[in-house]
Amino acid sequence: MKKNKSLKSLKTGLSPGSVIFVGERKLEFPEIKFIEYDENNFSENKLQDFDDQLNLTHRTSPCWLVVTGIHDTSLLTSICSKIGISTLITEDIADTKRRSKVEFYDDYIFITIKSFVGFNGNDEINFEQHSLILGKNLLISFSESRPDYFKPIIDRIRVPKSRLSTSDADYLCYALIDFIIDNYFSALEKLDDKMDDIEENMLANKNQSSLTEIKKLKRNLIIFHRMLWPVRELVHNLDIGETSLINKSSIPFIRDLYDHSIEALEATETLRDMAATVIDVYLSTSSFKMNEIMKVLTIISTIFMPLTFIAGVYGMNFEVMPELKWHFGYFAVLILMSLISIAMLFYFKKKRWL
Amino acid sequence: MKKNKSLKSLKTGLSPGSVIFVGERKLEFPEIKFIEYDENNFSENKLQDFDDQLNLTHRTSPCWLVVTGIHDTSLLTSICSKIGISTLITEDIADTKRRSKVEFYDDYIFITIKSFVGFNGNDEINFEQHSLILGKNLLISFSESRPDYFKPIIDRIRVPKSRLSTSDADYLCYALIDFIIDNYFSALEKLDDKMDDIEENMLANKNQSSLTEIKKLKRNLIIFHRMLWPVRELVHNLDIGETSLINKSSIPFIRDLYDHSIEALEATETLRDMAATVIDVYLSTSSFKMNEIMKVLTIISTIFMPLTFIAGVYGMNFEVMPELKWHFGYFAVLILMSLISIAMLFYFKKKRWL
Amino acid sequence: MKKNKSLKSLKTGLSPGSVIFVGERKLEFPEIKFIEYDENNFSENKLQDFDDQLNLTHRTSPCWLVVTGIHDTSLLTSICSKIGISTLITEDIADTKRRSKVEFYDDYIFITIKSFVGFNGNDEINFEQHSLILGKNLLISFSESRPDYFKPIIDRIRVPKSRLSTSDADYLCYALIDFIIDNYFSALEKLDDKMDDIEENMLANKNQSSLTEIKKLKRNLIIFHRMLWPVRELVHNLDIGETSLINKSSIPFIRDLYDHSIEALEATETLRDMAATVIDVYLSTSSFKMNEIMKVLTIISTIFMPLTFIAGVYGMNFEVMPELKWHFGYFAVLILMSLISIAMLFYFKKKRWL
Amino acid sequence: MKKNKSLKSLKTGLSPGSVIFVGERKLEFPEIKFIEYDENNFSENKLQDFDDQLNLTHRTSPCWLVVTGIHDTSLLTSICSKIGISTLITEDIADTKRRSKVEFYDDYIFITIKSFVGFNGNDEINFEQHSLILGKNLLISFSESRPDYFKPIIDRIRVPKSRLSTSDADYLCYALIDFIIDNYFSALEKLDDKMDDIEENMLANKNQSSLTEIKKLKRNLIIFHRMLWPVRELVHNLDIGETSLINKSSIPFIRDLYDHSIEALEATETLRDMAATVIDVYLSTSSFKMNEIMKVLTIISTIFMPLTFIAGVYGMNFEVMPELKWHFGYFAVLILMSLISIAMLFYFKKKRWL
Amino acid sequence: MKKNKSLKSLKTGLSPGSVIFVGERKLEFPEIKFIEYDENNFSENKLQDFDDQLNLTHRTSPCWLVVTGIHDTSLLTSICSKIGISTLITEDIADTKRRSKVEFYDDYIFITIKSFVGFNGNDEINFEQHSLILGKNLLISFSESRPDYFKPIIDRIRVPKSRLSTSDADYLCYALIDFIIDNYFSALEKLDDKMDDIEENMLANKNQSSLTEIKKLKRNLIIFHRMLWPVRELVHNLDIGETSLINKSSIPFIRDLYDHSIEALEATETLRDMAATVIDVYLSTSSFKMNEIMKVLTIISTIFMPLTFIAGVYGMNFEVMPELKWHFGYFAVLILMSLISIAMLFYFKKKRWL
Repeated sequence: MKKNKSLKSLKTGLSPGSVIFVGERKLEFPEIKFIEYDENNFSENKLQDFDDQLNLTHRTSPCWLVVTGIHDTSLLTSICSKIGISTLITEDIADTKRRSKVEFYDDYIFITIKSFVGFNGNDEINFEQHSLILGKNLLISFSESRPDYFKPIIDRIRVPKSRLSTSDADYLCYALIDFIIDNYFSALEKLDDKMDDIEENMLANKNQSSLTEIKKLKRNLIIFHRMLWPVRELVHNLDIGETSLINKSSIPFIRDLYDHSIEALEATETLRDMAATVIDVYLSTSSFKMNEIMKVLTIISTIFMPLTFIAGVYGMNFEVMPELKWHFGYFAVLILMSLISIAMLFYFKKKRWL
Repeated sequence: MKKNKSLKSLKTGLSPGSVIFVGERKLEFPEIKFIEYDENNFSENKLQDFDDQLNLTHRTSPCWLVVTGIHDTSLLTSICSKIGISTLITEDIADTKRRSKVEFYDDYIFITIKSFVGFNGNDEINFEQHSLILGKNLLISFSESRPDYFKPIIDRIRVPKSRLSTSDADYLCYALIDFIIDNYFSALEKLDDKMDDIEENMLANKNQSSLTEIKKLKRNLIIFHRMLWPVRELVHNLDIGETSLINKSSIPFIRDLYDHSIEALEATETLRDMAATVIDVYLSTSSFKMNEIMKVLTIISTIFMPLTFIAGVYGMNFEVMPELKWHFGYFAVLILMSLISIAMLFYFKKKRWL
Repeated sequence: MKKNKSLKSLKTGLSPGSVIFVGERKLEFPEIKFIEYDENNFSENKLQDFDDQLNLTHRTSPCWLVVTGIHDTSLLTSICSKIGISTLITEDIADTKRRSKVEFYDDYIFITIKSFVGFNGNDEINFEQHSLILGKNLLISFSESRPDYFKPIIDRIRVPKSRLSTSDADYLCYALIDFIIDNYFSALEKLDDKMDDIEENMLANKNQSSLTEIKKLKRNLIIFHRMLWPVRELVHNLDIGETSLINKSSIPFIRDLYDHSIEALEATETLRDMAATVIDVYLSTSSFKMNEIMKVLTIISTIFMPLTFIAGVYGMNFEVMPELKWHFGYFAVLILMSLISIAMLFYFKKKRWL
Repeated sequence: MKKNKSLKSLKTGLSPGSVIFVGERKLEFPEIKFIEYDENNFSENKLQDFDDQLNLTHRTSPCWLVVTGIHDTSLLTSICSKIGISTLITEDIADTKRRSKVEFYDDYIFITIKSFVGFNGNDEINFEQHSLILGKNLLISFSESRPDYFKPIIDRIRVPKSRLSTSDADYLCYALIDFIIDNYFSALEKLDDKMDDIEENMLANKNQSSLTEIKKLKRNLIIFHRMLWPVRELVHNLDIGETSLINKSSIPFIRDLYDHSIEALEATETLRDMAATVIDVYLSTSSFKMNEIMKVLTIISTIFMPLTFIAGVYGMNFEVMPELKWHFGYFAVLILMSLISIAMLFYFKKKRWL
Repeated sequence: MKKNKSLKSLKTGLSPGSVIFVGERKLEFPEIKFIEYDENNFSENKLQDFDDQLNLTHRTSPCWLVVTGIHDTSLLTSICSKIGISTLITEDIADTKRRSKVEFYDDYIFITIKSFVGFNGNDEINFEQHSLILGKNLLISFSESRPDYFKPIIDRIRVPKSRLSTSDADYLCYALIDFIIDNYFSALEKLDDKMDDIEENMLANKNQSSLTEIKKLKRNLIIFHRMLWPVRELVHNLDIGETSLINKSSIPFIRDLYDHSIEALEATETLRDMAATVIDVYLSTSSFKMNEIMKVLTIISTIFMPLTFIAGVYGMNFEVMPELKWHFGYFAVLILMSLISIAMLFYFKKKRWL
């Protein structure tokens, strides 16, 4: 991860609008798809390069330009300049370490949002950044990798007379965000399952691995929570933002998005609270077990140390030790030892250690 | 619980308004009851299916359509479409994992709220979702199961000239929410009793089970708190929402609801704070007891180890060991041992270990 | 306490405005006093029952109806209905588990507030609920018990030309709340004294009892804080509430009340923070002491175990053990043992355990 | 401290405006100084008693009445009544346990603020209350003790044509508050030094005293923070308060005060966070050391216990013990013992305990 | 560090606007550079002293006065008075312990901001204060040391027709703040690397050093967070501040700054949360390991103590000990010992200690 991290600081001292790819290159070559649709028709074309003949701005039927792979900054710059997008935004698209946000411009809306990818080998949660530019009847999406990520949406567009195919691009934009936010719930379900596993392991006394697991879980929850917070903001700003690019009829759907993002946030917080509880209770249980162990040790030591000492005394080789000569000396000592043990046991009984 | 959890993520990629049942099917067959009442009359009919002859919208006397069982999504869809309710709402009714909320529409108000059911075998708190649609003189309630849950309300409607039977449907809606919120207090009382049990057990040194209990209690409190927060919001929005569907005379009752929801929230927080205190104090007590146990062990070891060593020395079999020949050697050693013990005891006295 | 707790949930399913006493009956019979006063006169009458001849609403000189004992719900209902107070309020008066609050109505102001009573045998803080109804020149107070609680106020009214006797009923209402809030400080002082005791005990190593004490203290602080928060709100609402029932000249006094309630809240929070610090430091101290104890044990064991082992070796009864025959064998072994002990002591010195 | 504490609750039941001294009497006799100044002149007179001939309200050049010692409530009352100040304020001046605050009246502004005095013998932070009344060209200051506390300010007034001597009384009032707030930083520096000492002591393993020190430090920080919070509020209210008594030219200075109070608050919070970190790390270090100690003990015990047991076996006096007769029995046993020790050491090596 | 700390309190009692250097002198002599530029030209001159011939206020092309070294208060005062800046601001420039802030005046904007320098030998994070005064076409920057810190910016100005060289001074001001904030990310990356190192060390059981490291890390995060918070505020105020000195075209850049400062804040908070998690998990792991160690000790003691005791008994020298005479006594005892060990092992197996 360090390789990527260092890139962000490399931008220091550069002028703003310098388009530099910050992140991990996950794809060999970028892919560009151009989708046009209306109520009845659907066309999907793979573009080799960005075709400047395409007039994207004044269209009657909605279209969607799907760009997958953003490490090729020259391609990015050419796309953005052709459509007339500020270099500050192009810079944001190329920087995969930005917060999710929405920005309203006169001609378009710019949205950055992170989608859940999965957990890497080290059990770290992974996100990918998507940038959406919503113009009049035009949506451009930039994704880091996974050209098939939005396939379920494309399939829904294909269905003639479906809501997606009959609506404007703003509804498509909503559908993408909705799809991304719905995916968060599968992340949450996986995190929830991990929490269940940890608790089961703890009950089964597999403690050491559980502690490593819970650290990873907490780390993922911290990162997930930080990622969700700006998403909630983004959706709220979409709802209250005054723009002609979003039709009134789409507003209830955006409010629904807001409910979903709040639900995801609250579920994350619930999991965090529970993880904290698990650690607290683990510490208490551990402390309780320690007490139990120490009691056993102390009882054993307290009973056998005096007895061993007495045996040691009568094992001494002094020439004059009168007791050794007594006929019942041995039996007397054995009885003495028994009495001491019984006394000790009573003492521990009284102290409630037994 | 995992079966239900996975359902939410199954919705990913579906278009919004896809009515899919999310939750656990708790009932064999849905039940539909239709209740009409006014000041003097009361009629209650079980409907086999939703009867589309019933004109629900333009009525003079209030009526209540009680739907129990929401897993039959085709039934849900048919009811909702007949009354003219948006599919987004139908989707919410079928999804039992949503936050409680209120939404105002021109012709009706949509309310989702969770009611307390009880604790399952694993001591986990259980809720059920109720969706209420309040129209002009019409209330539709959708519940997951428990057809008799609202029986006390129905009994109050039966009483001629009671406030319920003489009021409009908005008061009935208030009465249902009031009933649900009042039920929270019985949950709180049970949680409070558990807290008392835990503290008693801790005093009686039954620690291990207490720790499991307190974890369950904290978990339930976390879940309960998360559930209550949106209820408070819901009631607040009902109070400030501008709608002609709620009569002015019902507003004081809704404010009373708000007070109740705040009280439930604060009681939950108090219990959470107390549970945290119990864990803190448990850790300290445990640490204190450990110190006590270690002191005993250390005192015993510190006294008997040197004594046993001395005994060991004079148990050695060297041919030349002058002390063994001394006439009072044995007694001298016994006296030496006593002096060492006394010195040790003084040392511990000084260190306040005794 | 469980008896009372269960009462609140018993109300579930009843219609709002059902006047049911929730709480503990602390008084045999209710007491009703009627006090009339102006600048020069003062009259106090005990009423057997509530006398409906008394016209309470249109009066020229202020009067105060003191009702002590609210478990007799029929009496409550009769008083309230005669004065024309909503049954929702009557219900609140009879329910001693409500939050403190103020409600403004056209003809009167309704205030519920809790007063500090003391600590019960189990060291739990106790409050009592007072409900005040402030009309034009009329104040009605409902208290759970303690007919003499407001005696100092009554004594101040008796003084001719005192501010109380020359002011309207709103000033009397202020004086009652001021009296109740001033009482909180005596609770805070008692809690502060307990904190001091706990810290002294901890210094004196009386740890176990201190832990129980601090748990009780924290519990009381949690409850006290929860009780104070709505009082602060109440006073704030009194200040900003628009009503003709409170004279402008009383506003500075109400602001003073607000300052007092904030001070009480902050003092409670300071005590909570300090209690948390005490527990933290206790845990650290306990952990430090444990280390000290373990060091002693380890030093003793580490020195004497090898020595005892050597003594054991030469106590073996093998026929062929050459060292036993050596003339200086015994002395050599003693020297060896001394060297081992010294080496160990150096080792511990180096490790800073000594 | 208990003597003072009990005084606050003694006020319970008294009518508001009852001027009662709450606090510790720190001065034998009150001192009154009267300072008049303008651009060129400066006069300072000690008054035996408050001279009612002085007309304080309608003045052309600014004057400052410095009252030190507020336990003489009759003097307080006489001063306040002569200048025409409400008894509620006189009561506040005499009560040294109030929060810092500002109150705007038509003719004057009333300010209460606490100044840092030092640390008492028990290392508890000490404050003193100052009350300021700012009228037109008139400032009255009431301090608990320390007649020389404001000497640096008086010295600055003495300087002809200095900003202080050429400005109105509002600037003098600002200068006093600025002086008091600047003093907070010397408190913060002392607390910061204490934090440094504690950390050094902890590194040097002087743990027990450090724990007591950190408890005192946290207590002082809690108290200091609570004291600072209302000061910040006070200065903010001074800034936004609409009053003709503060000249527009003084506003930038008051904003500067606000910055200073925020800085003091944040420094306190930083110290609190650091103290919490120190305790957390102390606990972890302590736990780590315990593990180290226990490892030593366990290693020693695990090696020597079996060896001592074997030696014990061959020290038994049975008549028939074949091994004892073997010629190389002793050496065989010594070798066996060595093997056991080596095996144990390998085991601990594998467990990473060595 | 103490030397510097004490300086802040030395200002107590001085009149505001007294220009006193608070901080550590890091530079021998101050350096003054004067940079003039437009689209095509660039001139940079080192000034020996501040040249009062330069008319800085009414200019057509932008210029930048770079002052490095602020300990020479007479120089500071002369510069500020010549440009006509209030002494309150000059005081702020000389005090390196102030919070970052922005202040709007009629003719200029005053900004104080801290830049990240690095970590000192003790691993403490270091900042330096920069003060910026933005006038019409004029920027003055005051830095503590590091004359080359802004070199990357100067290099960008040199480029003809670059955005910097073609823009007004407000864009230069933005570029400096952007440069400073971008630098924060390299600090964050270093802190992040430290966190990774600590976690790796903990896994590798190098615990003691990790604990010291994590304390330093948390301290740096606390300080960094406190430093960032006012920067966020500063940028927000720049954005919403109404001033003609910032061109409308620069506003999007300032909003971008705001996003960056939020990102830095959130990254810091994420690191803090993770550090807290690491400590929590360390404590739990430590507690778990202790349990493991204690189990080994207890098992060994519990098995060998009884055995050693039995061996001791038969090592006693009583004349009458019948068992010693038995032919199979020795073997019987050996078998008894084996049985005891096996029983113990079963016991521990059952207790799940093995």
